[in-house]
Amino acid sequence: MPVTARGSGSGLSGGARPRKDGLLISFERMNQVLEVDTTNQVAVVQPGVTLTELDHATLDAGLSYMVHPGELSSSVGGNVGTNAGGMRAVKYGVARHNVLGLQAVLPTGEIIRTGGKIAKVSTGYDLTQLIVGSEGTLALATEVIVKLHPRLAHSATVLAPFADFDQVMAAVPKVLAAGLVPYILEYIDNMTMAALIHTQNLELGIPDRIRDSCQAYLVVALENRTASRLEEDVDTTGELLAELGAVDAYVLEGGSARRLIEAREKAFWTLKAIGADDLIDTVVPRAAMPKFIAAARGLASAAGGAAAGCGHAGDGNVHLAIICKDPDKRKQLMTDIFALAMELGGAISGEHGLGRAKTPYFVELEDPAKVALMRRIKQSFDPAGILNPDVVFVAPD
Amino acid sequence: MPVTARGSGSGLSGGARPRKDGLLISFERMNQVLEVDTTNQVAVVQPGVTLTELDHATLDAGLSYMVHPGELSSSVGGNVGTNAGGMRAVKYGVARHNVLGLQAVLPTGEIIRTGGKIAKVSTGYDLTQLIVGSEGTLALATEVIVKLHPRLAHSATVLAPFADFDQVMAAVPKVLAAGLVPYILEYIDNMTMAALIHTQNLELGIPDRIRDSCQAYLVVALENRTASRLEEDVDTTGELLAELGAVDAYVLEGGSARRLIEAREKAFWTLKAIGADDLIDTVVPRAAMPKFIAAARGLASAAGGAAAGCGHAGDGNVHLAIICKDPDKRKQLMTDIFALAMELGGAISGEHGLGRAKTPYFVELEDPAKVALMRRIKQSFDPAGILNPDVVFVAPD
Repeated sequence: MPVTARGSGSGLSGGARPRKDGLLISFERMNQVLEVDTTNQVAVVQPGVTLTELDHATLDAGLSYMVHPGELSSSVGGNVGTNAGGMRAVKYGVARHNVLGLQAVLPTGEIIRTGGKIAKVSTGYDLTQLIVGSEGTLALATEVIVKLHPRLAHSATVLAPFADFDQVMAAVPKVLAAGLVPYILEYIDNMTMAALIHTQNLELGIPDRIRDSCQAYLVVALENRTASRLEEDVDTTGELLAELGAVDAYVLEGGSARRLIEAREKAFWTLKAIGADDLIDTVVPRAAMPKFIAAARGLASAAGGAAAGCGHAGDGNVHLAIICKDPDKRKQLMTDIFALAMELGGAISGEHGLGRAKTPYFVELEDPAKVALMRRIKQSFDPAGILNPDVVFVAPD
Repeated sequence: MPVTARGSGSGLSGGARPRKDGLLISFERMNQVLEVDTTNQVAVVQPGVTLTELDHATLDAGLSYMVHPGELSSSVGGNVGTNAGGMRAVKYGVARHNVLGLQAVLPTGEIIRTGGKIAKVSTGYDLTQLIVGSEGTLALATEVIVKLHPRLAHSATVLAPFADFDQVMAAVPKVLAAGLVPYILEYIDNMTMAALIHTQNLELGIPDRIRDSCQAYLVVALENRTASRLEEDVDTTGELLAELGAVDAYVLEGGSARRLIEAREKAFWTLKAIGADDLIDTVVPRAAMPKFIAAARGLASAAGGAAAGCGHAGDGNVHLAIICKDPDKRKQLMTDIFALAMELGGAISGEHGLGRAKTPYFVELEDPAKVALMRRIKQSFDPAGILNPDVVFVAPD
C-alpha cells in the first residue's frame, strides 16, 4: 500500500498529498522537542515539531534553528523532506546544512540512526544527506538532530529601490564579496512590492515618485553581536548600495522590518490572491538571474500570460508567480521556463521540492541517466515502491 | 577489473591504494583550474588540482576554497573522495559543505552532472552529497565545482595553556557560543605540544614553568575584514579564556602563528616519527570529548600502549596517535576505541575516511542494517563492484 508522510502539510509542491489508494501518516502529534543541548549546540526533535515550537524551545538558551521557510507552522520533518530553505539560507544554509542526524524507518522495516550530534563524518555513505530532500520517498524520519546557532542581539534591515532591475542583480555578488555577511538578501520586483504594499498595508516610507520609477528592490538584513558593529555595517551597506546605483536606502526599524519580512514571506499568497495560477521556485547560478528572469518574462508574455516575483537573490533562487489561465499553455510555459533554468545550470526547485506538482516536469527534462540512477537508489531503499510513489518518479496508477 | 582512483595520494586511510589485481587511475595530470567565477563565487576545477594550485588561482580574486586538510598537496578530487576536513571546518565546514557540483563518470559508463554553481537545490536526490565522501566507490569525479569565500584581510592566533585538560574541553562550547566565529579552534595535548616544539623548533615564548604544569593548549584563530574588530575580538577572546581558566594567553604574530599552525598540521608525522603505530581521527559530540579522550587513554594504557594527540576541538574530531607495538593488541585496542566513540554517538572517522585501513573496523562495528543499505546503494551505482572494492565494504580476494 502506498504510504505518504505529512508534517504540517504546508508544502507548496504537493509532496505530502497521498494517493487515493494510499495511506497518509501524519506526524502532527509526534511533536516533542526531546532535547536542547547547549554544549553541542543541537536540538533533538520529533518530526512533527513546528518551527514556531522549536523557536520557543531554544529561546532561553540563546540559540536558534536558522532554517526559516516562509511558513513557520511548517514542521522539522517537512523541512527534512523538502530540504527547506527560506530567506536566511544565504548565511545559514538550507535544511541540508542544518540537519546533522536522523532516526529513520526504512520501508523494509528497519530503524536506523544516521549522523549524530556531530558536524562532520567520513564513515561510509552519508545517509542523512540522501534522506534530506528525498520527499518521503526513501525513509520516514522519526527523530531529527538539528544544528543550532547563537542568536545575535542586534539586527537591522536595509531596503534599497533601484531604477533598473539588472542593477539589483549586479549588486548581489558585490554585497556578498564585501564580507558583510547579510542573513537575508532578497530582491522584490515592483509588481510584487505593489501587491505587498496594497494587500498587507505595509508602510515603508517610500515616496510615490520613487516607487513609480523603480523596477525592483533589494532587501539586506544584517545582524551582529554588538550594536556599534551593526550600525557601522548598516552605514557601509548604505554607501555600497548607493555606489551600486540604489536610488535610496531605507533603514527599517524593528516593527516595520518585521512587517516587510513577513509580507515577503507571504508574497506567494498575495500573488495568488491577485490571480497567480502557479508558483515556481527555480534556482539558477546567481550570475544568471537577470538573464533567466528576463527570458522567463518573455516566455510568459509570449504565452499571453505574465511572470512576476521575488526571490532569494543571494542564492539564485527565483520565486515566480505564473499567470497563465489556459492549462495547456501554462504547462508548456512552465516546461519552457524549467528547461531554460536547466540550460543556465540551474534546477527546477531550489527549496520547495518536486512533489506531485513538479515531478512530471522533472521526469521529462532531467538527464535520463540520472533519473535511472535515482530510481535504482530508490529501489535500494524501497524495493516494493511503497513510499510516496508519485514523487520524484511517476508511478503507474 | 577493480579500479581505484587517486589524486595526490596523500590520504591517511589507504583509500587510494589499488588492489594487486586492479587498475589505478591517477588524476595527477588532470589538473586544470577551469574557471574562477567571481560573480557566483565558485571555482570549476579538474580533480587533480592541488589545494596549493587552487589557492594561487583564486588569490587575485580575493577568494579562497576554505577546506584545508593538513596536506596542501592534496587534490580537490581527493577532498571529494574522503570528504576532507581540516582546521578551518569549524567556520567553513568540510568538503561536503564546499562542493556544489560534480561531473562524474559512473562505473556503468555514463557521464553525469550533479548540482551546479548553485548553493541549494531540492530536485530529486542529492547525488553530489552521496558521491562526496564515498571514497571512489560509487563514481569518479572528473570535474568539481567548489564554493569560494572572501579572504578576510586580518587574522590573529591566540594560544592558551590550561593546567587541566577538562578545562580546555569545557572552554570550547563557550568560545563558540560567544559568537566570536573562530576559523580555527584546536586543542593540543602536552605530549603532542612537546613533540612539536622539539622536532620542529617552534619558538612560542611559553615559559618552561607554564609548559611543565599544563595538560593541554587551546588554539583560537580569529579573522576579520577590519583590523580594529580583530583587535577587539582578540581582547575579548583573551578575557574569556582567562575566565575559563587559561593560565595565560599568547597572541601569536604572523610568522609564529603560521609556524604553529603548520606544525599542528604535521602533528601526525611528528608523532609517527617519535613512535606512533597508527592514527585515528574519530569524531564524537563535542561535549563527549573529555570522556572519550580519558577513556581512550585508559584503554591504551591497559593495552600496554599510549594515546596522545590533538584535534579539531570545535568539531569533536579527535586525532589520536596510537602507540601499541603488538599488532593483535593494537587491533583490539583500536576496535575498542572505535566502539567507545560510537557508543558516545560518534563515528570512526571525522575526515580521513575509512580507506582500506579502517574499513574492517567499520564493517565489524556498524549497524548491519546500515551496512546492508549502503551495499545496496553501492550496487545501484556499481552493479559489477569494480570501484575500490575494499573500501567501505570488504570484498573477497
